[in-house]
Amino acid sequence: MENNIKGFKFAGINGGLKKSGKKDIALIYSEKPCNIAATFTKNEIIAEPLKLDKKHAKNGKGQAIVINSGNANACTGKQGYEGALAMAQKGADLFGIKEEDVFVLSTGIIGRTFPTDQVTKGMEKCHQQLGPDADSRTNAAEAIITTDTFPKQYQKSIEIDGKTVELYGMSKGSGMIHPNMGTMLAFLTCDIDISGELLQEAFKETVDRSFNMISIDGDTSTNDTALIMCNGEAGNKKISSFSDPDYHIFKDALHDVCKELAMLIVKDGEGVSKFIEYKVINAKSEKEARQIIRTISDSSLVKTAMFGEDPNWGRIIAAAGRAGVPIDADKTDLYIGNIQLLKNGQPLDQNIPEAEKTLHQSSVYITINLNQGDEAAVGWGSDLSLEYVRFNSAYTT
Amino acid sequence: MENNIKGFKFAGINGGLKKSGKKDIALIYSEKPCNIAATFTKNEIIAEPLKLDKKHAKNGKGQAIVINSGNANACTGKQGYEGALAMAQKGADLFGIKEEDVFVLSTGIIGRTFPTDQVTKGMEKCHQQLGPDADSRTNAAEAIITTDTFPKQYQKSIEIDGKTVELYGMSKGSGMIHPNMGTMLAFLTCDIDISGELLQEAFKETVDRSFNMISIDGDTSTNDTALIMCNGEAGNKKISSFSDPDYHIFKDALHDVCKELAMLIVKDGEGVSKFIEYKVINAKSEKEARQIIRTISDSSLVKTAMFGEDPNWGRIIAAAGRAGVPIDADKTDLYIGNIQLLKNGQPLDQNIPEAEKTLHQSSVYITINLNQGDEAAVGWGSDLSLEYVRFNSAYTT
Repeated sequence: MENNIKGFKFAGINGGLKKSGKKDIALIYSEKPCNIAATFTKNEIIAEPLKLDKKHAKNGKGQAIVINSGNANACTGKQGYEGALAMAQKGADLFGIKEEDVFVLSTGIIGRTFPTDQVTKGMEKCHQQLGPDADSRTNAAEAIITTDTFPKQYQKSIEIDGKTVELYGMSKGSGMIHPNMGTMLAFLTCDIDISGELLQEAFKETVDRSFNMISIDGDTSTNDTALIMCNGEAGNKKISSFSDPDYHIFKDALHDVCKELAMLIVKDGEGVSKFIEYKVINAKSEKEARQIIRTISDSSLVKTAMFGEDPNWGRIIAAAGRAGVPIDADKTDLYIGNIQLLKNGQPLDQNIPEAEKTLHQSSVYITINLNQGDEAAVGWGSDLSLEYVRFNSAYTT
Repeated sequence: MENNIKGFKFAGINGGLKKSGKKDIALIYSEKPCNIAATFTKNEIIAEPLKLDKKHAKNGKGQAIVINSGNANACTGKQGYEGALAMAQKGADLFGIKEEDVFVLSTGIIGRTFPTDQVTKGMEKCHQQLGPDADSRTNAAEAIITTDTFPKQYQKSIEIDGKTVELYGMSKGSGMIHPNMGTMLAFLTCDIDISGELLQEAFKETVDRSFNMISIDGDTSTNDTALIMCNGEAGNKKISSFSDPDYHIFKDALHDVCKELAMLIVKDGEGVSKFIEYKVINAKSEKEARQIIRTISDSSLVKTAMFGEDPNWGRIIAAAGRAGVPIDADKTDLYIGNIQLLKNGQPLDQNIPEAEKTLHQSSVYITINLNQGDEAAVGWGSDLSLEYVRFNSAYTT
């Protein structure tokens, strides 16, 4: 985490939105214009800032990201949209760039009047703290979190065309994490030189295999966003062809960073006591395998069984069965850890005590072999604990 | 509940599947052949007996239902299917009817070897107890439950063509209750004379508006079935036209009975502390309104907020937004009880304390007005309590 990401600066401060005094305003800024790629929530109700960001993302360019935590600026109507506009204008003023090169994000409670003045004043203070170093990055990563218990960051260095390329990301999660982006924010910065088209493609594919494959409570927020900015400052020969081997080196690194940031979100989920990795193998398509994983990892009955360390695999197979994917029950195998509990649709009762032992670990591995094809997918989820209910039944009151 | 349903007999006994000694084998029998209608789980993994029942339901005729609780006979492969066959054969022998007129149902834990001999022996014992009276009906209703805390029954008398028609139903629910039928069984018997075609149509429509509109934990079981048998013994002039006013009298009564049996399932859900009624009004279609209700009533974040008596309506609107239905956020209104919290997409912060008070009741009413059209739907759900997690993390172990 020590190397700087050339040409990028970061800051995070408390602007008074969080009464606790914790950081709540973050800035991420590139000295040069960037190619960007972004994915937004699929919720029909989208937060006010995202209405603006969707316009700003259209040309694939950008230079700064402004984030506040403590208020989601969602279901806030005209007042909220004007607040988001004010944040973008303030960002453009502070950095001397165009408003359309500023992205605005908010996270926190939904449906409360947006404190526009507090946020824009906080941005001024934040702007004075900008720095390229690891401490500045951590300050920003701390300012974007809400109920998370720790800031989430991951960095990877790769060599492209003889140059060192730095890829750095931060994320926040906790409640409402699910397929199609939970209340999840992820911001990545990279000094690689890559064409806009290739960046878009690599990012979309990677988000589908990382952030979209995690589930904590099955809800999708109004604010979810993943965004990457690449400024070309590493000085590599620009990557502009899908057949360039460097494209694949970059994409692999991007996958590693996004997967790590996604797994950190699950591990820090509200009231999570177990981390569960789901694999569906030998499916007809990756899409079908993903769909099954998302349904299982979202099942309250599976999740309470995991919390109870109960090898009640019938709940897993019942959840798989309602994923909307054709399954041949008589061909299906199921494993908890490496203990097989279902073979060609026949239960292996005698293996249950052994499977139960593996559930005492804090990480659990579940594999379903559909024996239908040769595609596969992997995803990550949590259990459903007493702590989750305690926490989420007392969030605003 | 005192009037008999002419021509029907019931029984329920303990056959040794439940070690507690509680009842676990039920029989429902009509002395005359019946028109029947049935809906089965949409899960891809279906229990073994349902494979048989789907064949038996094809001709729209039937005369007996055999149910065991304590073992779901799902994910049991060939051994389980043979067990289901043996149950149907034994039923046919005991009643002297065709095997295809017997329906076989199982409920309980998934993926355990099916105790065929125990069940068929239990059926013999059960057969000796058959009776037409309320006590016999209650015995059967007790024998079909698993983790339910009370048997669920409802009866309604209507007058059709000058004759008294009795409509009686029993249901069981608890965990895994959700749209597309949870581990839910519902059996209805009626002495009305009605054509098969009309019965099928009335039943399908009613199931969609009752059993398919309840949610406890969002899972769908491998075994869910709703089945009605009508034997014509009331002696009314046969209903054979959709325009016959008697058809609508029957359908209304059917809706009342199914809705009551569905609400009893929610009220008795595992660890349920609150009963919540959801209404979506002024939608473009009933289908869209239903889809929104099913998504909200299944949201862990909404459910924990209800448990915490927290008027965090942002979670409700965020869940509505991910239902896959186009929503115009700027037109949407939301009420908890009769307290409005969102008006044309603008939050009414000042009403929150008042709304919070209504959440202290054991029944909660939530209404979303989409202002998009003139269709509506209603559904029922539960909260997500500490007790739910405690209960479901300790089911098999």
